[in-house]
Amino acid sequence: MKDRNNVVISVDAMGGDNAPSFVISAMNEYAKQNPEIQFILCGIENEISPLLSQYPSLSRYIIKIIYSGESVKNDDDPIHAFRTKKNSSMRLAIEEVHNNNANAILSCGNTGALMVTGKMLLHTLNSISRPAIIAPFPTYKNDVVILDLGANTEINEQIVLQFAIMGSSYSKIEYGIKSPKVGMLNVGNEDNKGRTIERKGHILLQNSNINYCGFIEPHQVINGDVDVVVTDGFSGNIFLKSAEGTAKFISKVMKKTVIETGILGKIGSFLLRSHFKKVFKIINPSRCNGAMLIGLNGIIVKSHSGADIEGITNALGVAYRLAKYELNTKICSDMEEKMHLFQHLEDKKIS
Amino acid sequence: MKDRNNVVISVDAMGGDNAPSFVISAMNEYAKQNPEIQFILCGIENEISPLLSQYPSLSRYIIKIIYSGESVKNDDDPIHAFRTKKNSSMRLAIEEVHNNNANAILSCGNTGALMVTGKMLLHTLNSISRPAIIAPFPTYKNDVVILDLGANTEINEQIVLQFAIMGSSYSKIEYGIKSPKVGMLNVGNEDNKGRTIERKGHILLQNSNINYCGFIEPHQVINGDVDVVVTDGFSGNIFLKSAEGTAKFISKVMKKTVIETGILGKIGSFLLRSHFKKVFKIINPSRCNGAMLIGLNGIIVKSHSGADIEGITNALGVAYRLAKYELNTKICSDMEEKMHLFQHLEDKKIS
Repeated sequence: MKDRNNVVISVDAMGGDNAPSFVISAMNEYAKQNPEIQFILCGIENEISPLLSQYPSLSRYIIKIIYSGESVKNDDDPIHAFRTKKNSSMRLAIEEVHNNNANAILSCGNTGALMVTGKMLLHTLNSISRPAIIAPFPTYKNDVVILDLGANTEINEQIVLQFAIMGSSYSKIEYGIKSPKVGMLNVGNEDNKGRTIERKGHILLQNSNINYCGFIEPHQVINGDVDVVVTDGFSGNIFLKSAEGTAKFISKVMKKTVIETGILGKIGSFLLRSHFKKVFKIINPSRCNGAMLIGLNGIIVKSHSGADIEGITNALGVAYRLAKYELNTKICSDMEEKMHLFQHLEDKKIS
Repeated sequence: MKDRNNVVISVDAMGGDNAPSFVISAMNEYAKQNPEIQFILCGIENEISPLLSQYPSLSRYIIKIIYSGESVKNDDDPIHAFRTKKNSSMRLAIEEVHNNNANAILSCGNTGALMVTGKMLLHTLNSISRPAIIAPFPTYKNDVVILDLGANTEINEQIVLQFAIMGSSYSKIEYGIKSPKVGMLNVGNEDNKGRTIERKGHILLQNSNINYCGFIEPHQVINGDVDVVVTDGFSGNIFLKSAEGTAKFISKVMKKTVIETGILGKIGSFLLRSHFKKVFKIINPSRCNGAMLIGLNGIIVKSHSGADIEGITNALGVAYRLAKYELNTKICSDMEEKMHLFQHLEDKKIS
């Protein structure tokens, strides 16, 4: 049983392209940065044991090791994985949160399986209808958190309000912003823009006491004009993949152009190499590693499958902070306060 | 009355940031490239007359000049503009198409007003339920045409099929592709991905004899994996603005990085300047100028408001080709052929 004062992160060692070595190495890195951390490690014995012997100082941060019989693969069907892989490292790690032995789980594994298993085992918070995928998006000014990035393709305006409340709670804890600015993704800023869901959500958010700044267009998100962006999981995913796809495309075109260039161009790119690195660090969304399935009884953080050790270490930091500063307690109290207003709005038939 | 063998483009000289000078200059440029063109010019007399005297050779391509009493401004409400500005250059130019004096209209003006006035005066083609905004999107391999980019925020699967047919007809004429590959924008490639509209549209397109390649994710669009992308106007607009916003953001960050750099970096960027230009030419969606409101009894081409003379000249080329090769006749015959299949599908209750 975890010590109430410590944060315990349950780690699925077997998920991700470079599991379990990168995962265990990242745990070791993070423990150096934050000696208050405690881990429960879930993984296949003969794969994790040799790695643990490489990091002798890590053992003092691991309060329990759970040996799993199998692992969830990237191409496993999420529902099938939930039903059949009951002894997987992912599931065992989530069960540790469910059984109150850990405050948060981190996995680099199959996103769909993590979502399905997380939802089925942990259930949604009392006041929340649907969990959402939330992640930071890098902009020049600051990181913007966006939800939903793919858990719910179709939503209603009450869910928009819940997303705004959850996103604000996340932003307060993760970035220390007192009153996060919330925008709703749309194709224009005028009141009549968008679909029924945007217009209904807009009225509801305007009448909440959230710091709602109105509709926000994609280029304004990229500019970092707000702290939190709410949208349905389809539009959020299209936004994210379009931005990531464009950034990767430009990076590829630039590299190709430099390769095809003559000697002067090669000298030029040599002289600019540190600047190129800086630019692509800013625009690379994967530097903000650590998406979360928000709205469940427990904190589930998902690292990119292909994340490097630094990326997984960052994701461990996200899990730690959200657990330490009790994101879910914050969401529940914020929801309680706002749901009162929401009820009031319903009486006025605004929603 | 137009000569049946010639293509006549009715030009709204007063729309756009640099109207009427850029518009008239572009007409002059295009006439040099394509002496078969004929124009009807609509604009405010004391603004266009001095410009026309600068291009004496242009007069032989202008079969009629219509002096308008006013112009539609960029911030005019579209419906208000339609109702009250009956003597605007935009409206008069559209009326020339409506009255069969011109084959196509080009405007750089207020998009909303152009759409509303175009729809109200020209009406949709018989077999089409909703007109859509279609435009080419630049990728490394080829331009991809995307529709809808904003005319219809909510659609049904029959409209998806109509979009696929219209997009294919456009691609055949504008790019000479015999059997354009069509994809439907989605957040994943698997059959169960997306919302109800994607899944219903997917089945309908799979059962049409369109060259349908299935769902396509944003990064695959950017990669140029298909020729035509169909989606609703909300998702299409989010996709486009996210990609454009990211490209502009990277361009801004790179310029800023170079400005802040030392002397070696400045030398480096000097040596790479032609490569930078090449990269930003590829990624700049505005090089593909000339969006169209497709599905109306008449061809309406919209240039970017801020387009330069080259951009407006390109848009005149789009209008010319779509009129010359009779896009609307092609759409109607393609629709007739496919609607037979579509009816067949309805009988089987697939739709």
